[in-house]
Amino acid sequence: MANQAGSKSFLSLVEAVDNVPYDFDFSSLYQLLLPDDPRPHGFMLPSIVEKMPWSAEFEVDHKSRTVQLLDSSGGEHTLEACNSSFHTTIDAAIDQDLFASVHGKHSEMYRILGANQFTCLERFTASLFGIAARGAHLTAFVRTTGGLKIWIPRRSPTLFTYPDMLDTTVAGGVKADNTPFECIVAEADEEASLPADFVNKNTVATGVVTYLTRGKATSAIRPDVIYVFDIELPESIVPVPKDGEVAEFMLLSVDEVKGAMFRGEFKPNCNLVMIDFFMRHGIITPENEADYVEIAMRLRRKLPVPTVPSL
Amino acid sequence: MANQAGSKSFLSLVEAVDNVPYDFDFSSLYQLLLPDDPRPHGFMLPSIVEKMPWSAEFEVDHKSRTVQLLDSSGGEHTLEACNSSFHTTIDAAIDQDLFASVHGKHSEMYRILGANQFTCLERFTASLFGIAARGAHLTAFVRTTGGLKIWIPRRSPTLFTYPDMLDTTVAGGVKADNTPFECIVAEADEEASLPADFVNKNTVATGVVTYLTRGKATSAIRPDVIYVFDIELPESIVPVPKDGEVAEFMLLSVDEVKGAMFRGEFKPNCNLVMIDFFMRHGIITPENEADYVEIAMRLRRKLPVPTVPSL
Repeated sequence: MANQAGSKSFLSLVEAVDNVPYDFDFSSLYQLLLPDDPRPHGFMLPSIVEKMPWSAEFEVDHKSRTVQLLDSSGGEHTLEACNSSFHTTIDAAIDQDLFASVHGKHSEMYRILGANQFTCLERFTASLFGIAARGAHLTAFVRTTGGLKIWIPRRSPTLFTYPDMLDTTVAGGVKADNTPFECIVAEADEEASLPADFVNKNTVATGVVTYLTRGKATSAIRPDVIYVFDIELPESIVPVPKDGEVAEFMLLSVDEVKGAMFRGEFKPNCNLVMIDFFMRHGIITPENEADYVEIAMRLRRKLPVPTVPSL
Repeated sequence: MANQAGSKSFLSLVEAVDNVPYDFDFSSLYQLLLPDDPRPHGFMLPSIVEKMPWSAEFEVDHKSRTVQLLDSSGGEHTLEACNSSFHTTIDAAIDQDLFASVHGKHSEMYRILGANQFTCLERFTASLFGIAARGAHLTAFVRTTGGLKIWIPRRSPTLFTYPDMLDTTVAGGVKADNTPFECIVAEADEEASLPADFVNKNTVATGVVTYLTRGKATSAIRPDVIYVFDIELPESIVPVPKDGEVAEFMLLSVDEVKGAMFRGEFKPNCNLVMIDFFMRHGIITPENEADYVEIAMRLRRKLPVPTVPSL
């Protein structure tokens, strides 16, 4: 449904990221299975399954389209045993530079969200295995005499992904051994120089955005979970770039943020975080947005992988 | 996953209301189809389709399991033509007292949410036709020196549904010709005597809760949309019962509300509204609730009926 800024709509911004049809046939993909757990934790493209230099602990079955991590630890599914299988495989893939999306580089550890045993693998490879990636985004806002304003960073021109684009105030992937809140506290310092004590006391957990995205380059399907947080800043606290990932911070009005969204200036998944913020703060309402219910449901897309251990 | 109050969990409270399995086979039900629109707007039990005294404008096809409202207005799908078909049918059902859930009574008009033409039918019959019902809930809270507290009403002992149970501060079904906000403004006066001017200025739209519920008595499946609103009250504004639907208002702490939820004292769908409130206000967090992501997705269940017109 067209409304703001010509033919663009908030729903179209959501659909550009949550771009896998509801009736997508997952049976065309391979299920990634962990020991003693019948639930698929990822869905992999056949082409990636073919190419992956699986270590001996993985059993690939082309008939059932499954990649089963076998119990390689004699009944004890220890963290070490489970992870070493992934590490051996991933190390080989990186050494042989098999996947363009990994850039031949090692990256920080992500956990498999619903795994019964703490299981982790490298961030850049998450989309190859089709596991759910965890991110955390903090929106910092200020109630000014001119209305609510939001601190928006412009990403550094030297970043590998989405250089020069606009972003959520503070955002990052949640490392395997961090909680979403710990991620935000660390990134608020590293990316925005926000005072740790203030962030610790005033950051509010406000929900999640979930979506299922099909990459343009690889057509791999990646479930994403973004934990969203808000923080209200006094006008006296101003975010300042620190670690080189951010070029500058701008304090934008809601209309300025909307304009930038519809002009395509935001990193695409940040549009979803902004829309969620707008819905929670009475900016997008049932009265001004025909797609209100549809957008709300899309922002919490039911993921095809578990997010809670079954044991 | 068990946690608070013994074996009860927030997720179990959600699942008690959003109680239709994700893999439910809708082909066992009849689709309710409107003129020139292939999208089903409701799913009806075969036993209800059998019993309904359909007027001539409806065509029931047992092979395709559809109930098609025919164009009875010669190409112009006018409001009058469309609605009169439902009214004739519903009047007959009420006159003959065919359905226990309707209590042989007429009720206010609900609209079919995603219908291309403005189409309405009586509230008590919404679950018979399986259309999405629209509700609106307002949570009034106070930031006291003793922490955040919530105004919780106890329903009148004389109410037909859920007498004596706890409820959201202000709640009601959204009448066909009202918006959710208009519903809240009216109900805030009628149920809680809140000053209209204050409510108009300070009520914030904060999202929706959607769920799919299967009634115990009839086993009919009803999609529900609850538009949720917040209002922060100063300690000086105290809600007072007015129209006889509320017995009393109590200002409860978050822990008192949680306790009442786990003891089963709330009208069941209000638990979902409270859980949504807790998630938006940093009370339920990713750190204190293992089912966080699962609960968030369940509170925005994708409904099987459209919520936006297709024309």
